[in-house]
Amino acid sequence: MFKKIKKHNIKIAVIGLGYVGLPLLDEFTNKFNCIGYDYNKKRIDELSLSYDRTNQIKKHKLKKLNFTRDLKKIKNCNIFIVTVPTPITKSNKPDLKHLINATKALSKILKKNDLIIYESTVYPGCVENICANIIEKDTGLKLNIDFFLGYSPERISPGEKQKNLKNIVKIVSGSNQNITNFIDKLYKKIINTTYKCSSIRVAEAAKVIENTQRDLNIAFVNELSKIFEKLNLNTHEVIEAASTKWNFIKFVPGLVGGHCIGVDPYYLTHISKKNNYEPKVILAGRKINDSMGKYIVTNFFKLFKKKKIINKKYKILILGLTFKENCPDTRNSKVFDIIKTLNKKNCQVDVFDPNVKKNELEITNIKFNLIKKINKSFYNGVILAVKHKNFKNLSPNKIKSYCKTNNVIYDLKGFFNKKYSDATL
Amino acid sequence: MFKKIKKHNIKIAVIGLGYVGLPLLDEFTNKFNCIGYDYNKKRIDELSLSYDRTNQIKKHKLKKLNFTRDLKKIKNCNIFIVTVPTPITKSNKPDLKHLINATKALSKILKKNDLIIYESTVYPGCVENICANIIEKDTGLKLNIDFFLGYSPERISPGEKQKNLKNIVKIVSGSNQNITNFIDKLYKKIINTTYKCSSIRVAEAAKVIENTQRDLNIAFVNELSKIFEKLNLNTHEVIEAASTKWNFIKFVPGLVGGHCIGVDPYYLTHISKKNNYEPKVILAGRKINDSMGKYIVTNFFKLFKKKKIINKKYKILILGLTFKENCPDTRNSKVFDIIKTLNKKNCQVDVFDPNVKKNELEITNIKFNLIKKINKSFYNGVILAVKHKNFKNLSPNKIKSYCKTNNVIYDLKGFFNKKYSDATL
Repeated sequence: MFKKIKKHNIKIAVIGLGYVGLPLLDEFTNKFNCIGYDYNKKRIDELSLSYDRTNQIKKHKLKKLNFTRDLKKIKNCNIFIVTVPTPITKSNKPDLKHLINATKALSKILKKNDLIIYESTVYPGCVENICANIIEKDTGLKLNIDFFLGYSPERISPGEKQKNLKNIVKIVSGSNQNITNFIDKLYKKIINTTYKCSSIRVAEAAKVIENTQRDLNIAFVNELSKIFEKLNLNTHEVIEAASTKWNFIKFVPGLVGGHCIGVDPYYLTHISKKNNYEPKVILAGRKINDSMGKYIVTNFFKLFKKKKIINKKYKILILGLTFKENCPDTRNSKVFDIIKTLNKKNCQVDVFDPNVKKNELEITNIKFNLIKKINKSFYNGVILAVKHKNFKNLSPNKIKSYCKTNNVIYDLKGFFNKKYSDATL
Repeated sequence: MFKKIKKHNIKIAVIGLGYVGLPLLDEFTNKFNCIGYDYNKKRIDELSLSYDRTNQIKKHKLKKLNFTRDLKKIKNCNIFIVTVPTPITKSNKPDLKHLINATKALSKILKKNDLIIYESTVYPGCVENICANIIEKDTGLKLNIDFFLGYSPERISPGEKQKNLKNIVKIVSGSNQNITNFIDKLYKKIINTTYKCSSIRVAEAAKVIENTQRDLNIAFVNELSKIFEKLNLNTHEVIEAASTKWNFIKFVPGLVGGHCIGVDPYYLTHISKKNNYEPKVILAGRKINDSMGKYIVTNFFKLFKKKKIINKKYKILILGLTFKENCPDTRNSKVFDIIKTLNKKNCQVDVFDPNVKKNELEITNIKFNLIKKINKSFYNGVILAVKHKNFKNLSPNKIKSYCKTNNVIYDLKGFFNKKYSDATL
């Protein structure tokens, strides 16, 4: 039972203040006594100065929020919401270090009747096995007797302002039925619609299949792009025609980067393999999507050859660096795969992306210039990689003006009608 | 140019009077001088007696249509619309024999300025390579000089009455721009909305990717079903929760049979392989879907073992035999895969499906009884395979009443809440 916490004495700590945690802290602060915790000094310093590098929360709102990187400051809280990143390792396995570290930190301050709600993407069983075990071992407290757990997966979509925390349906689940009901009521204070799952494991599974489905559907159109390149067909034109069927789902080919779509499938495949089923379809999709960077450069050089553009050091302009349009985040962007492959081919790579700030880039082993102004009549080829809204003014003629007379324009995202580029994906 | 045919002297022959051809003939007959041709004597005899075994067109409408199996009777037509089946061979390669035979037959009667429009599913390049070559070789006529070709893929969805010919967007394409415009006008006489493609190849590709996308998405949820079986999670419950996300697309696990979804992907993979790209994602999806029949029986027997139901000859009831709900068509139904596998395990298989008529079944090497009345307290296990509307009255209790006290109910399609069955897909 979970009766001790009443509305008037709810104190919430949000653990991890990234894309997910900060908006959550903002909303909950309107309703409850709240504090935001992050172990990253730089992030806490910036937020304390009301600066959010992720562009999620505006200055005047940030001023109302409490931030700390001192565990002692959150120990009197009774609800802890964990929103730390759950990335993958280099060998595509779940990297739970942030989740485990956060759980271990919380174990140091956890009291009887406290509740921890996880929002990070995990695989089915992770919260009730990995996390619960750490807490029980470190604290001696017992799940569902002394402390309680919940899982309510985040569904933040960076760059899509209309999909905000308030109007996205929120899945909730708890370590028992009472806790599920309590968490449901809690989130209903800040969110229009919630959906209760029968168990934490169902909620964990639901989250991980959402992005896996998206990943696979993009892999499908990327595979189509590879087939249609052989058949000399324009993929965008074919998809446009197929989209006139009532049940065709319009996905377009492209790079799959970021912290979710390219990552979450590996959480599912990890737990599946551990249970003796080797996923075939999902992993085939992952392989296609992970191969697109190299594939694009191979095609790009085929076009140089076709147009007889031969150079010792090609000058390449890339438009867009972020993992997704209209957001400033470059982490796990697959545009880096393109640049890396171009580096190997001894190209000079200039990248233009007004959404990205140079001082926020933490890249060491990849060579390129993040330029603020584009040279005229300078480039052998241009790759249109990310379809930011603020690229709208870049007409085909303007892009041509950046190039030498003989050039290759590779329009990955269908910025323009096919007649304005040498190839599209 | 294609000026010679004017509206008042259009004469249309529809070649192949199945699911696709018959409704097309019906609609065009309201506007033009039309005749329907099929080489199958039985079909022509039945249609001439105003009986349509596919339940597509009602008796009073059939009475107004003209049918023949005599090529001479259609030789004065100037537009030929080919709607013959394009299945696959046993080794999953395109089986073009009906398409080629129809084309060869038409070559015998083709005149100058005639137009042939294909509606059958094919791979990109098929109409302008395979078909055009046959005609040019057999007749000596030249494409786009002496005769013309078009492609307008069918989008018939058997069993879905609200998706009829009139209100489904129809893709049109022709061997040149004038022909595309002519075909567009022609179909606009009977269809609300059309969509012009820039070439026949784009239209061919659009058609083939529609069902391939659907096949892959079902393969994905089938793979999830396999993973979640290992994790002891209910797939339907997880999909229901994920469907609360705005961009999750709700597919449910199941058998993929019939003449389209399980077949069309092989047309695409065939032409892809021929052009030196081995599709990974699409073929992984096909493999999963083709494996479901055996997988279901394996699970079924695991449940018998778990419930300690041991028998020399299990008595099994299967509800539903058709390849899709609410239609009478059993061709390529994957329920046969289930029955075949049960046959090998020496089971007695009874199938109940009020949509299927015994005398229309053409099955030789599979052992089962198509029953009209279900025995009480008789079966060891029931497989709920096809979710027909007319199964609505079959309550969980009623289904239990057909079984012995200890039994296994395997609800493939989520007919009921999970608590009423031993397992779902």
